[in-house]
Amino acid sequence: MSPTNNPDEISIGVIGLGLMGSSIIAALLMAGHPVKAIAPLRSDLAEAPRRIREHLRHSAESGLLTGPVRAYEARLTLSEDYALLKDCRLVQECVIEVPEIKAGIYRKVAAIVDRHAVIASNTSAIPISHLQKQVPHPERFMGIHWAEPAYMTRFLEVTRGQLTAPQYADWVCTLAGGWGKEPTLLRKDIRGFITNRLMYAVYREALALMQRGEATLEDVDKAFRYDAGSWMTLMGIFRRMDFLGLPDQWEILRNVFPKLSNEEGVPPLMQEMIDNNARGIHNLKGLFPYSEEEARQWEEAFALFNQDIFKLAARYPSEPDSMKSKTPL
Amino acid sequence: MSPTNNPDEISIGVIGLGLMGSSIIAALLMAGHPVKAIAPLRSDLAEAPRRIREHLRHSAESGLLTGPVRAYEARLTLSEDYALLKDCRLVQECVIEVPEIKAGIYRKVAAIVDRHAVIASNTSAIPISHLQKQVPHPERFMGIHWAEPAYMTRFLEVTRGQLTAPQYADWVCTLAGGWGKEPTLLRKDIRGFITNRLMYAVYREALALMQRGEATLEDVDKAFRYDAGSWMTLMGIFRRMDFLGLPDQWEILRNVFPKLSNEEGVPPLMQEMIDNNARGIHNLKGLFPYSEEEARQWEEAFALFNQDIFKLAARYPSEPDSMKSKTPL
Repeated sequence: MSPTNNPDEISIGVIGLGLMGSSIIAALLMAGHPVKAIAPLRSDLAEAPRRIREHLRHSAESGLLTGPVRAYEARLTLSEDYALLKDCRLVQECVIEVPEIKAGIYRKVAAIVDRHAVIASNTSAIPISHLQKQVPHPERFMGIHWAEPAYMTRFLEVTRGQLTAPQYADWVCTLAGGWGKEPTLLRKDIRGFITNRLMYAVYREALALMQRGEATLEDVDKAFRYDAGSWMTLMGIFRRMDFLGLPDQWEILRNVFPKLSNEEGVPPLMQEMIDNNARGIHNLKGLFPYSEEEARQWEEAFALFNQDIFKLAARYPSEPDSMKSKTPL
Repeated sequence: MSPTNNPDEISIGVIGLGLMGSSIIAALLMAGHPVKAIAPLRSDLAEAPRRIREHLRHSAESGLLTGPVRAYEARLTLSEDYALLKDCRLVQECVIEVPEIKAGIYRKVAAIVDRHAVIASNTSAIPISHLQKQVPHPERFMGIHWAEPAYMTRFLEVTRGQLTAPQYADWVCTLAGGWGKEPTLLRKDIRGFITNRLMYAVYREALALMQRGEATLEDVDKAFRYDAGSWMTLMGIFRRMDFLGLPDQWEILRNVFPKLSNEEGVPPLMQEMIDNNARGIHNLKGLFPYSEEEARQWEEAFALFNQDIFKLAARYPSEPDSMKSKTPL
């Protein structure tokens, strides 16, 4: 798909310089790509450079950079001018989840880029098959869905729409390997993506347990944190089944599946929170209570934890052969 | 419930010296309790002391012991004689999941222990409300469900049966705080426990995604490992909702819940594995393929990972106030 694997020779465009965009830009700079960052909102041009520098410094402190921060910044061009995208092999859109706004951006991008360039959306809400109808070459359009903080997580979800050509999605997956990601490929454009589906299956059951008074909020959280949390970063869920033994798993599955919640609507407990304008740590009104100090501490703890778990995960790669070299912390 | 909080003065009995029993015994010894370990199977008396010593050495290497291994072993009595349980405040049963065998054991224990002693089962398959009918004081019977390796996980699930008196369950939760656990309390004896329910909700959805060819085994595993795994040890699932913002969560929930699998039966994919005698890493036939070397490497990696994640989790306690003292790894 590309004559080179040298990131220095593969320019990548990013449209949208909000929190997510800034974080994605940092990730791509860290991988060695020249990045053309386009601001649909002029106001972002003021804030984004500072945020990107902070991310790079954060990564430098974690030992993830091989050169000084300024060497990475030197590869970044920030502008409002879409014409800068001309030589980009990949353009990543990460603006707000409004289909009309995204469509307008795709038209501008498509008018500029080479016919082989891939255009991708970070959407987690709008079907890729719908978005790709807005571009003249839908076979080169796909979802590339990042997790925050984008420059320090291994997660990346690539989603093919109905019209996406598999080889373009495969090229992005290969490219993303060079970004330090472990990309997953969703072969059909199902609503909700892999990770959302799995997590919302948990939320459905957890909310049902609470709604029926069978467990408290705190205990549901502790159970997942200290049980699933004790192996999740090492193994996926199917590996865990192999590890525990399939016949035992089959026995539990047979017993538990018929008992699980099949609720399709919003549980009253969740609806009441929303009706009361509870926004979580962002307005100090969540499922749990927060003081301003506590909300800040959670933000800080998550930033620190991300560094720690990133380093820990790197010591336990998916291939057991390479596990030999590990030494305990 | 007990006149003392000094673990040295609270003897605990453990019935069953298999893999789980040995691991639980190590955990209780590490917490400072005198432990009376009773073997319903004489053959276990030969193997258990070696396993328990290995667990204690493993913990010593991880810096979890404050004295030499032999000082912990000195508090352990191994026997086939149930009379040794006489002064135990708590007796933990962890034998195979056969109701008749468990019932026979409870009768022997109940005939020996003081009327205030708590009897608990490690069962993850049989309802506590059913088991507690086998003892003369069902109000002092409950589930205490450990996760492997019991001496190095924070997980502990306490389940009240229909007849369990809340104050006994509360006493066990307090006691378990001294074992380094973060106990969760299931207030009703629902089938499947908290953690099983939540994880099998994930399994149901994951198996459905695979069954429909929408994602591969590998990708489902990667998505959970690198997305959920990046925060799970820090936050529970509800804390995560607060962190991401409730209105966004509500929006996704509304969209995703109606799309989730409501399958109640065993998915064909899983049934075929079972019909083909696939037992996971234990016979090298699992959802993933294994060589003997790979199976061994997964066992080793999990043992090492457990030490690492235990230490990491200890640096991020649930209370944000105490997070201040953390320094990055």
